[in-house]
Amino acid sequence: MAATLAELALLVGGKVHGDENLLITGVAPLSDAGEGEISFFANPRYGEEARKTRASAIIAGAPIESSRASFLLSDNPYLAFAKILAFFRPPSRPAAAGISEEAHLEENVRIGEGASIFPGVFIGRGTTIGERTVVYPNTVIGERCAIGRDCIFYPNVTIREETVIGDRVILQPGAVIGSDGFGFAKDGVAYVKIPQVGVVILEDDVEVGANTTIDRATLGTTVLRKGVKIDNLVQIAHGIEIGENSVLAAQVGIAGSTRVGRRVSIGGQAGITGHIEISDDAVIGGQAGVTSDVPPGSFYTGYPARPYRQALRSLAELKRLPGLRDEITALEKKLSELERKLGEEK
Amino acid sequence: MAATLAELALLVGGKVHGDENLLITGVAPLSDAGEGEISFFANPRYGEEARKTRASAIIAGAPIESSRASFLLSDNPYLAFAKILAFFRPPSRPAAAGISEEAHLEENVRIGEGASIFPGVFIGRGTTIGERTVVYPNTVIGERCAIGRDCIFYPNVTIREETVIGDRVILQPGAVIGSDGFGFAKDGVAYVKIPQVGVVILEDDVEVGANTTIDRATLGTTVLRKGVKIDNLVQIAHGIEIGENSVLAAQVGIAGSTRVGRRVSIGGQAGITGHIEISDDAVIGGQAGVTSDVPPGSFYTGYPARPYRQALRSLAELKRLPGLRDEITALEKKLSELERKLGEEK
Amino acid sequence: MAATLAELALLVGGKVHGDENLLITGVAPLSDAGEGEISFFANPRYGEEARKTRASAIIAGAPIESSRASFLLSDNPYLAFAKILAFFRPPSRPAAAGISEEAHLEENVRIGEGASIFPGVFIGRGTTIGERTVVYPNTVIGERCAIGRDCIFYPNVTIREETVIGDRVILQPGAVIGSDGFGFAKDGVAYVKIPQVGVVILEDDVEVGANTTIDRATLGTTVLRKGVKIDNLVQIAHGIEIGENSVLAAQVGIAGSTRVGRRVSIGGQAGITGHIEISDDAVIGGQAGVTSDVPPGSFYTGYPARPYRQALRSLAELKRLPGLRDEITALEKKLSELERKLGEEK
Repeated sequence: MAATLAELALLVGGKVHGDENLLITGVAPLSDAGEGEISFFANPRYGEEARKTRASAIIAGAPIESSRASFLLSDNPYLAFAKILAFFRPPSRPAAAGISEEAHLEENVRIGEGASIFPGVFIGRGTTIGERTVVYPNTVIGERCAIGRDCIFYPNVTIREETVIGDRVILQPGAVIGSDGFGFAKDGVAYVKIPQVGVVILEDDVEVGANTTIDRATLGTTVLRKGVKIDNLVQIAHGIEIGENSVLAAQVGIAGSTRVGRRVSIGGQAGITGHIEISDDAVIGGQAGVTSDVPPGSFYTGYPARPYRQALRSLAELKRLPGLRDEITALEKKLSELERKLGEEK
Repeated sequence: MAATLAELALLVGGKVHGDENLLITGVAPLSDAGEGEISFFANPRYGEEARKTRASAIIAGAPIESSRASFLLSDNPYLAFAKILAFFRPPSRPAAAGISEEAHLEENVRIGEGASIFPGVFIGRGTTIGERTVVYPNTVIGERCAIGRDCIFYPNVTIREETVIGDRVILQPGAVIGSDGFGFAKDGVAYVKIPQVGVVILEDDVEVGANTTIDRATLGTTVLRKGVKIDNLVQIAHGIEIGENSVLAAQVGIAGSTRVGRRVSIGGQAGITGHIEISDDAVIGGQAGVTSDVPPGSFYTGYPARPYRQALRSLAELKRLPGLRDEITALEKKLSELERKLGEEK
Repeated sequence: MAATLAELALLVGGKVHGDENLLITGVAPLSDAGEGEISFFANPRYGEEARKTRASAIIAGAPIESSRASFLLSDNPYLAFAKILAFFRPPSRPAAAGISEEAHLEENVRIGEGASIFPGVFIGRGTTIGERTVVYPNTVIGERCAIGRDCIFYPNVTIREETVIGDRVILQPGAVIGSDGFGFAKDGVAYVKIPQVGVVILEDDVEVGANTTIDRATLGTTVLRKGVKIDNLVQIAHGIEIGENSVLAAQVGIAGSTRVGRRVSIGGQAGITGHIEISDDAVIGGQAGVTSDVPPGSFYTGYPARPYRQALRSLAELKRLPGLRDEITALEKKLSELERKLGEEK
């Protein structure tokens, strides 16, 4: 796999600053790259590495001063990087394995053409799987599921009964889709299980991280709309809806029946209570604890979560609290002094 | 499956407000329900949906004004809902599959009558499994375990050696029971593993969420008493005891040797340090960080966790801090003014 | 298995206080131990149990007053306990099972002598596994991995392609090694996946907890150096390096490209942002939110994480805030009084 810098620029809709005919044979990080390799620079934190790199070319938003490399300039260097990486390292999808004899398919299972079903996979009765979908070893898919095309389910994934999954959905290892929602009714001091008979729907282009859990609804549906991306170890409770192109970082937890809008971004380890609404384009900071509705386009942080500026001001004041105490002590002193003087004058 | 509203009221010990002879054929959420369906109302947040629903009947604590539906009234509408849902949607337990030939049973494994062991299941030597217990595909049960009756173990669960599990225990997919406790002794700068040779006991009617992990004790036992319910992605460290009918929400973490009492409720993402005691009937707020003992019946929240009212007052003060600073600045001004006047008078 | 107290003291390099010829036949917790058993005491919290125990001997740093037991004294009682426990309860590693016929090995897989490959295991093409390594049921190992000797991989673990694992590495059940890093480039409102073509390296003596996830790097490597110990449900994102002998408690999350030094200790549920550096010997408190570099040997806590003393002082001030407000109110009163007096005098 090789291409000139000009060809790569054409591929990503960027332009060359430097040697157009430079032959590029691979991609590598700034710190490791060598002759003939292209690297990537966007985070100013790595400016020093970018200046020192031995990469022949760098994908960037603007040329870097005092660098000897050629540049592939792009308005969206991340996207250019994604495309060039995909060009040099196409996904090593297995040669169509077909359906392994060591997989277990119950009756009335339909598998699309070009799909790969690895050893140890179990597929329940009445489930359909689309064309070219790859199901890696030991993944279990329950009864009456409808799975789309070109999906990749990594090993040890569990998809429970009646789940609906669109096209190009990726499930990282150990992800659980359709576990029971956490619903119990109190009967005296004990708890009685509320049957969880709803389903989970993952629309097209959803990606779910390793060991993330997505519960089925009590009734109705838990839905992840098109293009939602979820990182590892995230908890999505029953009856949640997450809007298109929203992104959740690792270890986020969302409680039941909450609605998350479109293009929302939620930072790692944030917790969101049940039965509230996070509106479109909101941003939730890492470790935030969200206890009430969040308006569109706002940035909430802290616990309980508040608009970023407010939370920041409180934090700054908190740091300055010891100083505040000193000021009060000084005031008290002055006041006593005044009172004393006033007394003497009389 | 169909029943009159009067019959359903009899089933749950409630009473009818409206048409006793109404024929109910299913259960649906307020927003989706239609003719012949019964729905459920308890959270005031959904009052608008309850007034607008097209459900023929609603399970509730009291009739809703201006609603055209009939009502099934109950002192415990959640419990009534649970029972009616179970009536209309009985768990679709598989027809007794028996023991799949594609499961692997080591020597001296005893399986009770009516149990279902699916393909890809592994059961270690000397383990016994009670009547009617269902073990779904690819779940692994170690050696010398004792498993009760009427349990449901979903796919890809791991139960390590010598675990003891009671009756009617439900393990959601990917749950891990009996992993090694996190115990190491320092030897210079390196760590030496302390063997974890204790066990885990899950008593009757315990439910464990998807991808939740419960460590075996170093010595002795990690115990979840009767009726404990644990949500997804929870961490239970070695040597913990959790009392009867306690409930832990998702992503809670409890460190080693802590004792949790009976009927305790712990909110999502709360963290509890090791070697402490959470007493009976305590409530721990979501994301709380508990660093010391919690008295019976108290409600602790925040970090470090304190009684709710105290934590709340501090948070309120924190929000008002900028105002406090303004007050002090005003005081300083007045004081300078006074000092100036006092100087002039002399 | 039995030994005199003198023999056990020799084994761990300790000395006997009491009866050297006492025959010890087992290890048990203070609360359960009986005749002939040795127990362990280090945490002062359990002083009462230590005085009351019926254990014949106790491993401790110093003799306990008014105890009837004999003592095995050690400068490092934890380490002595680890060694004695390993003596009495050696790991019940399975008699060399060899390679199960119910495991699935692709072409060009090499398995070292004395290794045990259980039923339901899948090993991808070109992978090598060292001598005496045990792979428990239903664990999946991808293509072109290099696995060392004397490792233990518990059930339902997933190791994705091209992972490199050293000797004596332990993976608890459900651990995921080599899942895709969470990397996407924005293309308008949608996200395009950035291929994650790097790898994961786990060096010798690493232990990874149950259902913990370790992502492969985008390019380059995610590395856990020698002796790193990680508890359950931890998230290690792409491109992270963790230095030798560092220890991470349960539910910690570390974002991409962060570097953690040697001998670092991170408390449960702490979150660490991406692209920063935690230096050698640093300690991070439980639930801390670390947003910037942490200097060597420092102890950071709180959110955002700060040096322990600072964070503690702010927390103390926060608790005293209501009092501060009262002081200000008192000041205001006095000042008004003074102003009034000053007015009257004129």
